[in-house]
Amino acid sequence: MRGPLSLSEIAAQLGGRIVGDPDCKIVQVSTLARAGAEHVVFVADRRYLGELARTRAGAVVISPEFEASTVLPRIVTDEPYLYFSRLARLLNPLPVCEAGIDPAARVHPRAAVAPSARIEAGAVVDAEARIGERAWIGAGSFVGAGVRLGDDCRLYPTAVVYDGCVIGARSILHAGVVIGADGFGYARDGDRWNSIPQLGRVVLGDDVEIGANTTVDRGTIDDTVIGDGVKLDDQIHIAHNVRIGANTAIAACTGVAGSAVIGRNCEIGGAAMIRGHIEIADGTRISPGTAITRSLRAGTYTGLFPFDDHGSWLRNAAALRHLSSLIERVRRLEKGLLGKESNSD
Amino acid sequence: MRGPLSLSEIAAQLGGRIVGDPDCKIVQVSTLARAGAEHVVFVADRRYLGELARTRAGAVVISPEFEASTVLPRIVTDEPYLYFSRLARLLNPLPVCEAGIDPAARVHPRAAVAPSARIEAGAVVDAEARIGERAWIGAGSFVGAGVRLGDDCRLYPTAVVYDGCVIGARSILHAGVVIGADGFGYARDGDRWNSIPQLGRVVLGDDVEIGANTTVDRGTIDDTVIGDGVKLDDQIHIAHNVRIGANTAIAACTGVAGSAVIGRNCEIGGAAMIRGHIEIADGTRISPGTAITRSLRAGTYTGLFPFDDHGSWLRNAAALRHLSSLIERVRRLEKGLLGKESNSD
Amino acid sequence: MRGPLSLSEIAAQLGGRIVGDPDCKIVQVSTLARAGAEHVVFVADRRYLGELARTRAGAVVISPEFEASTVLPRIVTDEPYLYFSRLARLLNPLPVCEAGIDPAARVHPRAAVAPSARIEAGAVVDAEARIGERAWIGAGSFVGAGVRLGDDCRLYPTAVVYDGCVIGARSILHAGVVIGADGFGYARDGDRWNSIPQLGRVVLGDDVEIGANTTVDRGTIDDTVIGDGVKLDDQIHIAHNVRIGANTAIAACTGVAGSAVIGRNCEIGGAAMIRGHIEIADGTRISPGTAITRSLRAGTYTGLFPFDDHGSWLRNAAALRHLSSLIERVRRLEKGLLGKESNSD
Repeated sequence: MRGPLSLSEIAAQLGGRIVGDPDCKIVQVSTLARAGAEHVVFVADRRYLGELARTRAGAVVISPEFEASTVLPRIVTDEPYLYFSRLARLLNPLPVCEAGIDPAARVHPRAAVAPSARIEAGAVVDAEARIGERAWIGAGSFVGAGVRLGDDCRLYPTAVVYDGCVIGARSILHAGVVIGADGFGYARDGDRWNSIPQLGRVVLGDDVEIGANTTVDRGTIDDTVIGDGVKLDDQIHIAHNVRIGANTAIAACTGVAGSAVIGRNCEIGGAAMIRGHIEIADGTRISPGTAITRSLRAGTYTGLFPFDDHGSWLRNAAALRHLSSLIERVRRLEKGLLGKESNSD
Repeated sequence: MRGPLSLSEIAAQLGGRIVGDPDCKIVQVSTLARAGAEHVVFVADRRYLGELARTRAGAVVISPEFEASTVLPRIVTDEPYLYFSRLARLLNPLPVCEAGIDPAARVHPRAAVAPSARIEAGAVVDAEARIGERAWIGAGSFVGAGVRLGDDCRLYPTAVVYDGCVIGARSILHAGVVIGADGFGYARDGDRWNSIPQLGRVVLGDDVEIGANTTVDRGTIDDTVIGDGVKLDDQIHIAHNVRIGANTAIAACTGVAGSAVIGRNCEIGGAAMIRGHIEIADGTRISPGTAITRSLRAGTYTGLFPFDDHGSWLRNAAALRHLSSLIERVRRLEKGLLGKESNSD
Repeated sequence: MRGPLSLSEIAAQLGGRIVGDPDCKIVQVSTLARAGAEHVVFVADRRYLGELARTRAGAVVISPEFEASTVLPRIVTDEPYLYFSRLARLLNPLPVCEAGIDPAARVHPRAAVAPSARIEAGAVVDAEARIGERAWIGAGSFVGAGVRLGDDCRLYPTAVVYDGCVIGARSILHAGVVIGADGFGYARDGDRWNSIPQLGRVVLGDDVEIGANTTVDRGTIDDTVIGDGVKLDDQIHIAHNVRIGANTAIAACTGVAGSAVIGRNCEIGGAAMIRGHIEIADGTRISPGTAITRSLRAGTYTGLFPFDDHGSWLRNAAALRHLSSLIERVRRLEKGLLGKESNSD
């Protein structure tokens, strides 16, 4: 936390139009409900005007259409949420990476570590790895042979990057992330499975963030490629040879099967499932819990069994097994009725 | 394993009414099928009376309604399963935590570690962390700056707790658990995503148990809160700002999206999905594989596509895409028939 | 990578019939699109004949029915994909395990480690563990007390094996795998949950491969058993007391609930869900995203809500809640129409 800033100091850095006292000082961001005089809040939606009337916040970031709804000192901007995110970062700068290799880290003599990088206790960096400036390798994490980590990367504790993978600048791997494990590739050999060597890499672009315990497998022959600015939540699985375009965001617990190609600027809800070998257009939105089983043009797609109280579900789910025959019965009824109508003419 | 105990020694500690030889000695719990003379088994359901007749167990924990179904020495109790769980623990006490900091652990000089705590090789405890009495921090696990771990906590190897989080007394984090990684919060900034600092903590109550590779993200501004006695299975994801009430149990592979509020004493089946920003009442039951998309009053809820042989599924799934038009066709048929009926009056 | 091999050298080791120049030398496998003169590719499907005509590969592994479709030097075999997998391994042999215990590893004095085994920095091997010949224990991984690791096993960095578990020969655990964490077993004790000691083990057969961040819980009383040659992808959860027969393959993000029994040679798609206490016959195929809720005879089973554009889904999903009453309405219509028909007779 950076300490108090006045609205005029904030606006000098982030823009926006001040209404009310420009010397109003704030210390931290907050929610409408919990805020005190030292806090700034934001309002971007009519729903929150009631809470705004009751908040004890010192200042508000607000869109022009609601600026008259409060007498608090405020910064007016067209994109209050984006502004608020920048202000939150201004008040809470990323921690500075203190350079140095902990004596309890194990760095291979043939690894190349930038002098400004930080390697914590228990971390292991293997041969030929190249670690960029200010890269921060957390406790107990692992960087395999030949890996390239860009400048300002951060690996949280226990993150693992297998040999040969590439992580772009400013990318973040949370704890338990595994990048570059072998893809799931086997050829049938009678009753047994013969494993197919996974020779590709994982290549992550710049500004990628990957949530805790997410896995991205290496490609079989080609690479698995995650574009610049992609954001993956926790517990996602990305299979071998998948390609994800820049700035696509995927929520937690989603699985993407092998060789799927996902475009740029897509938004994929949590617990979704993307079949392998399909292509999803730029800008596609997929709802949570939806299984996508063929290639998609841009649009919004959903497929989720609607829950119900258990008894109703039982009845409807049982009926579902007879749906195609029901359609046939309706067709016969339509014919029958039509027959009657013809007869009665 | 604690060694042989007689039924009378057991009943002295756990209660229950002995029928048959009170000096019958048992060594371990078992299943009806595998038990030998040194084992105790339990029967709480009529289905198992056949197996009970054939078991070679030395003794049985049984409910009053079935106590006449066996001649084996037995302990009669109204809750045989609960009794059995206590007896299993009596025979298999939790291992004693041997105090001490392994020389290959890395404890920050400004961390406060209770003298009875145990910190194993490769574990890292950061500045200002406070570690309670008899807390057991496994090999290669990580305790961030300012974390508070309650008395008698256990972190299995590779568990990670990010800075500032709070873990209550007697709580257990299995291997690969990640507590307090950043929540998935971004504001759109043109085509790019601007990350929102995640300033809240995760606060776990007492007696919480968290299964292997489960993730609980820190809150954005408020905390993510897991109540006393909550049990989370493996591979669950709990997003930022979620609140889970005391003694709720959630089975594996479930995802809970941001700001969902789950009540006390709920039971949530495996691979369920809870949408964000909804509220689930105390005592709600959610079936496995069910996606909950709105707030719920107490009850039992289900939503699962019934599987079928592939061919039948193909027919019914195709029909499903025409369901709303089918309803319209039936409505027209009903009108048509009604018209006929009117005509024929 | 092993360096150039001629087709005749390859056929001498792997069989197959050479057509064209037997001295054609290749260095690596590739895809049709990316191959150059030093690469070998394979064609097993008519779909790829177009790409085959354009490829710059030096040689092809091909089935007899397509062998006339190219003039490239080729190896003809009935199973091109299997052959290709063997050839890929021949060209890319598994890395040799360099024996030795890293000084930064922690091996308990009462552990028994084969002299040819390798234990990397930060790994911990507990008391009474037995480590087989050429076993390779990666950085930061954990082998609990009494664990038995077979010959030629590999634990990638941060893999965890709890005490008492057994890992067969040549088995592979990728990063973040957790074997033997406590199963999710509790008895209700009023409002609270009383944990049931999980006394069983996990027993993995030979040639098992387990993907990154997959969890296999230990049994309650009996063991959790994974048969020889089973392949589990990433992010799978196998609950306590599950048994999986030999050579079954399960794709990523699948959950198998407690005490389920899965036969041999099954293929289970990604993000599937198997209910507890059911039995699945040998050779069963389960489609991705399918929840299996009762025991199965061999066959192919599917249950997946078909996705649609969001608007169509909304209409059909709403209609689904009225499906059982729709069937009733159709029944009444059928009766009504039948009544009319009787009347008009």
